[in-house]
Amino acid sequence: MTVHPAHTRIEVGDLRVPFTRVALTNGETFDRYCTSGPGSEPETGLPPRRAEWIAARADTAPYDGRETQLVDNGRSALRRGEARDEWRGERRRPLRAVSTGSTGGGGSTSGGGSTSGGGATGGRAVTQMAYARAGIVTEEMRYAAAREQCDVELVRSEVAAGRAIIPVNVNHPESEPMIIGRRFLVKINANIGNSAVTSSIAEEVDKLTHAITWGADTVMDLSTGDDIHTTREWIIRNSPVPIGTVPIYQALEKVNGEADKLTWEVFRDTVVEQCEQGVDYMTIHAGVLLRYVPLTARRVTGIVSRGGSIMAGWCLAHHQENFLYTHFDELCELFAAYDVAFSLGDGLRPGCTADANDEAQLSELRTLAELTERAWAHDVQVMVEGPGHVPLDLVEENVRLQQEWCHGAPFYTLGPLATDVAPGYDHITSAIGAATIAMHGTAMLCYVTPKEHLGLPNRDDVKTGVITYKLAAHAADVAKGHPGARDWDDALSKARFEFRWHDQFALSLDPVTAEEFHDETLPAENAKTAHFCSMCGPKFCSMRISQDVRERFAEDGMAQKSAEFVELGGTVYVEPEAS
Amino acid sequence: MTVHPAHTRIEVGDLRVPFTRVALTNGETFDRYCTSGPGSEPETGLPPRRAEWIAARADTAPYDGRETQLVDNGRSALRRGEARDEWRGERRRPLRAVSTGSTGGGGSTSGGGSTSGGGATGGRAVTQMAYARAGIVTEEMRYAAAREQCDVELVRSEVAAGRAIIPVNVNHPESEPMIIGRRFLVKINANIGNSAVTSSIAEEVDKLTHAITWGADTVMDLSTGDDIHTTREWIIRNSPVPIGTVPIYQALEKVNGEADKLTWEVFRDTVVEQCEQGVDYMTIHAGVLLRYVPLTARRVTGIVSRGGSIMAGWCLAHHQENFLYTHFDELCELFAAYDVAFSLGDGLRPGCTADANDEAQLSELRTLAELTERAWAHDVQVMVEGPGHVPLDLVEENVRLQQEWCHGAPFYTLGPLATDVAPGYDHITSAIGAATIAMHGTAMLCYVTPKEHLGLPNRDDVKTGVITYKLAAHAADVAKGHPGARDWDDALSKARFEFRWHDQFALSLDPVTAEEFHDETLPAENAKTAHFCSMCGPKFCSMRISQDVRERFAEDGMAQKSAEFVELGGTVYVEPEAS
Repeated sequence: MTVHPAHTRIEVGDLRVPFTRVALTNGETFDRYCTSGPGSEPETGLPPRRAEWIAARADTAPYDGRETQLVDNGRSALRRGEARDEWRGERRRPLRAVSTGSTGGGGSTSGGGSTSGGGATGGRAVTQMAYARAGIVTEEMRYAAAREQCDVELVRSEVAAGRAIIPVNVNHPESEPMIIGRRFLVKINANIGNSAVTSSIAEEVDKLTHAITWGADTVMDLSTGDDIHTTREWIIRNSPVPIGTVPIYQALEKVNGEADKLTWEVFRDTVVEQCEQGVDYMTIHAGVLLRYVPLTARRVTGIVSRGGSIMAGWCLAHHQENFLYTHFDELCELFAAYDVAFSLGDGLRPGCTADANDEAQLSELRTLAELTERAWAHDVQVMVEGPGHVPLDLVEENVRLQQEWCHGAPFYTLGPLATDVAPGYDHITSAIGAATIAMHGTAMLCYVTPKEHLGLPNRDDVKTGVITYKLAAHAADVAKGHPGARDWDDALSKARFEFRWHDQFALSLDPVTAEEFHDETLPAENAKTAHFCSMCGPKFCSMRISQDVRERFAEDGMAQKSAEFVELGGTVYVEPEAS
Repeated sequence: MTVHPAHTRIEVGDLRVPFTRVALTNGETFDRYCTSGPGSEPETGLPPRRAEWIAARADTAPYDGRETQLVDNGRSALRRGEARDEWRGERRRPLRAVSTGSTGGGGSTSGGGSTSGGGATGGRAVTQMAYARAGIVTEEMRYAAAREQCDVELVRSEVAAGRAIIPVNVNHPESEPMIIGRRFLVKINANIGNSAVTSSIAEEVDKLTHAITWGADTVMDLSTGDDIHTTREWIIRNSPVPIGTVPIYQALEKVNGEADKLTWEVFRDTVVEQCEQGVDYMTIHAGVLLRYVPLTARRVTGIVSRGGSIMAGWCLAHHQENFLYTHFDELCELFAAYDVAFSLGDGLRPGCTADANDEAQLSELRTLAELTERAWAHDVQVMVEGPGHVPLDLVEENVRLQQEWCHGAPFYTLGPLATDVAPGYDHITSAIGAATIAMHGTAMLCYVTPKEHLGLPNRDDVKTGVITYKLAAHAADVAKGHPGARDWDDALSKARFEFRWHDQFALSLDPVTAEEFHDETLPAENAKTAHFCSMCGPKFCSMRISQDVRERFAEDGMAQKSAEFVELGGTVYVEPEAS
């Protein structure tokens, strides 16, 4: 799970919190935040590290759970009469909250919805927000704080205030807890997921592993093709990072792709299915209200969110209010029982710079703010999704309004793209917007790959998207003055200045590419220890002159002399101006 | 010289100002700024379009010019006893200003420096700034205004005020005039140039053509290897865009690469050589003062500018003030006689985020401000170079200080990189900084390729760098609300919304890559007319739902109905909140 021979995964403290340790050639080490997990055998999944923490809280209990149906795996499973490649590893009975009156432990489950195959539990919230508000410091909080190298009280208080979330479904004990909030390191999400042209499930797990190896903090499974249920099971069982989904995609598959056939019941059943599997956060497009849909009519690109247009289509077909909005409190009860976080979808986000910050977008944001407070009333964690396509001069306003209206709930944006004119390079057009919006307070960035608007990303595109977003997120951390963020830049720049080429590669976000590019011009091994590079060549080297300057002025008590030199310089050395 | 079958070069008005016309499948056309020139046969060069304009002004005259020496082509030419691949096209006698007293025309040349092989001319300035200040509207100004689609008085007044430059050496009559200034479209520069491993001169011309075909507004020839003089001749004769150089590089070659051997005489002779060839702007590191050098001693990466370290090395070796500073007024006189623009080099720019906006950098900037005013006193055009490596939170300050101190002289920045941790991706780390700094007023951006810090860019890297910087510059134009800038985004987004795939490709900054990426997923020709794409597939399409919305609410006088719908929506359609 490491990308360079100088990298090792170390685990720190009683919680065994992971870091990537980079061994430098000068004997020093540099430790970096690590997303890649301990590694797994896809067939058996990761060890359920969090299971004992969850059990010790004694507020959840296993139950039989919803029975898997063929339709969960899509139309081709229905045709075949069986699901492909079902999960063969250990299958745990799902957990959910025991009711408030219960003392917890063993098989006691609450009622409320058991006839519909699982669900609400009489109001008990087993969420990190509930614990934080009650002043309880969980292992998840301690783990997240250790990763961030901050005080655990900062974690607890930010989660309690709703300004940060720790997405940790009780049914995803394999995860390594992490925190999303503006006071913490900026995070990035990578989207994966199968398409109509099915790939093997092993390939999906490989995509997951590829994304987190390069630094994805969370992964969304946006599968819309076949085997959705089974694919998701494999992904979650092998994921050390939170998994997000957009459950309306699977619900749409269950009604043969016809948006007007969707019902609250089908949707709710899909949510329960995913809660039991361990999805950590779900995008819910509950802000696409019927009355906002006409606001998109005069846009250049209308509605571009897939989930947004599904719900808009449903609203128009039925002339009724969005069922995600009308049933929102039921969703909150479900999410509270499993600790699933809302990712409130911006179904009316702009699809081009012309439509940015328009009435449709901002009307929906006001509704998302209302829904944020409603979720918080249930102790359910929330982040709010944002655009999309925004010219740079309007980027800051997006964060400011979201943070004000949603009382600091974490903002989670897709880019935004700063211009529409460069399809094929939208990882870059969006990284420009992403770094800017994160600098102003966005907590997590959803990556965009070079294939955006054009096709489906392949394995290389996933890596390019992740690396591009890691650098954007880090640029924002540095700009925010996040404690310790610039240490990484300084370590790499110091290695560069001292011609420690191997260290420069090892400290790079992508050591493989850095070394390959170097070797294209100067492949010999001794070029990696040489005190020059291909830019100036061996005869003249600017770095060497700088080192001369340093030796002359800064070492061995010469600092004072240096200062004198500066003071005198103006009069002693300057020649009279030549004519 | 076009990159897509739907593109043609059109020429508008009596000056035949070029645009790239994109023919769309709906019968419309979209015209874009065109940098690529009319195309040339490398052996014969481009036609000298500006020659008649220059002649008509009757303030310059041809003269014999400096005799080319073997050392002009480097050490291997000296060894061989001859220069390789000398320019075989028509060789014009160089022009320079006639002295103030002269009536102009014919062979009359001024004295002043003729014994040293050409040079100053008794003070007459044949610069666009001199004309602009005198209220004269030149063809170059009209041409630039037509390209920008703005009033020519804006061009004249900005050039007169020093807030914009039109880099047009009288000895580069092949160029298509363009303007650099914050009131105009943001421009980008691409660096090319041979290295110690010589490439053929035809390859160098090919690199030039490649860079401008993809949109470079100016090109700097940073050759440091052999055949510098001859390579530059071929490049200038074939370049429709301004050519910039860093003459200290060639001067260093003339003294066998030993910085301490440099003299004002060698440097001046090199500048004259390049003025006569037609270089349009030159980077001059006159702000690296002796007393600033020690300020770099405590930096993480010292001095990273090659020119800056050459001059720092010279200053230290001789314990004398930088000869570029002490002889600056002589340089101004030379530049005034050929209309060469200063690009005042920031030799002490930061080489990492840690060193950004430090005392060394800002001290030098104050000196560049002083030099700007000194050049303006000679009617010489000036732009000021900027960093480099700057965290996003300090980017705006760079522009603000430069614009204040230098009285609005155009800022020309290298990136800046927003973080140091991603070698191999520095086109992206720098595009983030570049878009931001341009939004705040930088007039031209020097590109950075993926090979920055690692090796020498190849042909593909040049294209990647140019496209990345074009998108950053355009994002800035859009953010600045530059008149008409967003039209391009809107045209592309409209094509996207209407599933005009061929138009989307044709309008893309890089149509080739856009189409290739699309075809990876859906290669069939009919997929390019289909009303869906690979993201959602044929069954469900968000764009189609949006079109349904539009048909329902926005057409044929339905706007009023739409507004009513919005007003009523809240009470008519919203179901009571579910429990």
